[in-house]
Amino acid sequence: MKEFDFIRQYLYHQKNDNNILLGIGDDAAIIRPKPNHDLCFSSDMLINNRHFFANVAPSDLAHKVLAVNISDMAAMGATPRWVLLSVALPELEETWLTAFCDHFFALAKQFDITLIGGDTTKGDFAFNVTIIGELPEGKALRRDAAQTGDDIWVSGKVGLAAAALNHHWGKVALPPKIFDTCEQSRLRPTPRVALGQAILPFAHAAQDISDGLAQDLGHILKASEVGADIFADSLPTLPALYDVLEKTLVYDYTLAGGDDYELVFTAPEACRNDILNAAQISHTPVTHIGKITQSGHLNIFDANGEPIQLNSLGFDHFG
Amino acid sequence: MKEFDFIRQYLYHQKNDNNILLGIGDDAAIIRPKPNHDLCFSSDMLINNRHFFANVAPSDLAHKVLAVNISDMAAMGATPRWVLLSVALPELEETWLTAFCDHFFALAKQFDITLIGGDTTKGDFAFNVTIIGELPEGKALRRDAAQTGDDIWVSGKVGLAAAALNHHWGKVALPPKIFDTCEQSRLRPTPRVALGQAILPFAHAAQDISDGLAQDLGHILKASEVGADIFADSLPTLPALYDVLEKTLVYDYTLAGGDDYELVFTAPEACRNDILNAAQISHTPVTHIGKITQSGHLNIFDANGEPIQLNSLGFDHFG
Repeated sequence: MKEFDFIRQYLYHQKNDNNILLGIGDDAAIIRPKPNHDLCFSSDMLINNRHFFANVAPSDLAHKVLAVNISDMAAMGATPRWVLLSVALPELEETWLTAFCDHFFALAKQFDITLIGGDTTKGDFAFNVTIIGELPEGKALRRDAAQTGDDIWVSGKVGLAAAALNHHWGKVALPPKIFDTCEQSRLRPTPRVALGQAILPFAHAAQDISDGLAQDLGHILKASEVGADIFADSLPTLPALYDVLEKTLVYDYTLAGGDDYELVFTAPEACRNDILNAAQISHTPVTHIGKITQSGHLNIFDANGEPIQLNSLGFDHFG
Repeated sequence: MKEFDFIRQYLYHQKNDNNILLGIGDDAAIIRPKPNHDLCFSSDMLINNRHFFANVAPSDLAHKVLAVNISDMAAMGATPRWVLLSVALPELEETWLTAFCDHFFALAKQFDITLIGGDTTKGDFAFNVTIIGELPEGKALRRDAAQTGDDIWVSGKVGLAAAALNHHWGKVALPPKIFDTCEQSRLRPTPRVALGQAILPFAHAAQDISDGLAQDLGHILKASEVGADIFADSLPTLPALYDVLEKTLVYDYTLAGGDDYELVFTAPEACRNDILNAAQISHTPVTHIGKITQSGHLNIFDANGEPIQLNSLGFDHFG
């Protein structure tokens, strides 16, 4: 199969979208931006044996490649609209391609996203997605907007992906049922787009958790020039993890695990009902985990109010 | 050096740009589109030992990574504005990074382009650039707009990069001076942005030559449902190549070599003066190489009017 056959056969999913003047297949796609909207741009590269195991199922890989980018749009409160997908593949193997593309386009369809371009080349598995989203003019959940006194919230559950990964690495041995739940979280994160949009009118700052809650919350603190007190036992996770792991390990996974793709966000106390309503409307559980302070530091406390020191602050891409 | 230090130290080049509401450093950048303009999007992935040699100088690599994307904007007649750069690097080596970033940002500055996002990860050298350009609303040099009777033009010189590459592969031995000229073309292609914009009011279809003139012109013919007659001896190339190579090899390199990043475009006969003026204004030589026909085929003739058969139709990314 030649490159152009591949592009034609697998990637042309034309879709009705009034903002697309020219889709995939030219030197560039052409988009007519919607009036009174800003555009958001984000890009993520995923590399074999770094972001995924070499034997990952193509559908799981397709999910992750696209979901982590959609998650960045969720973290801005934006509506994801278009993506460009670059893929390096060692060969064009039809069973693999079909499984990859079927899931990729199913997930894109679920979020009403259209593929408008990209690149294909021969090489070890590598993927890059650039995603473009829309925001009402002047609105966005930025990292630098947290204010002293804000509540800190986190969506869904954290630490599951890290637990599964550590099981793969042989550092812990999870019982099969718990591993399956954690592995599902690791392989199939749910981008919190509906929540991001629902909290857009109320929340101050937001960020998605890719490198670990403590580190990603740290980006908000640094950009906003504030501190935070959070409560490790308040962090939403799989309760069974506390039964099968040392408590300090659960803290490590929930606070510094990464790959959660949940949202951590701040909002004024006065908006607690609004946040809980937004969670309800978007069918996304949220948990209150602490407060923004003016300390300039992230303080983490256990159930007894004792400070917790982390072994690591989260994932370093060159560590 | 940690990832975030790297991003801070090398990639934050803030620039005055009224359309950037939020630059690099959040989950996503935010752009406010200029009124009455469409946006163009293109993405290219470059992989070690596939698109560049492992020992390539970092400045040459930076040039190619960015220039091939700028070239896609030139081919649309668009003004390049913003880029997202994803890089996989085996290590963070400061000398290498400085050389790479210095040239990357110098070239970006030359074209008034701002880096607004991207990704960094550990891995074998791999690069992805997504570029965003602006077009006056409804204007673009599309592949599907060539018309029977159009002149076919090509910018600059073609076949030099292929000659240099074949020298590297040991398939030909070019004299040092000729090799140097060809190697410079291969390593430092000039994106034809000024020409693309200058011909925008007159030209019908355009495409940049990355996979070989015959194949890339073929995309225009297919999309426009037309044919073409072109004249192999009219193709602009380094005249000295005819002195040191078999004529059939020169034909192969100029017609099917690729990596030229020149523009091939079509325009009505009535616009010949306009095209030549546009070339003058943009300081870009252009050469008339043939005509669009209704034949549905690409016919290539030698100086005696005899048809030429190519050994290959150009580069196949999975060949």
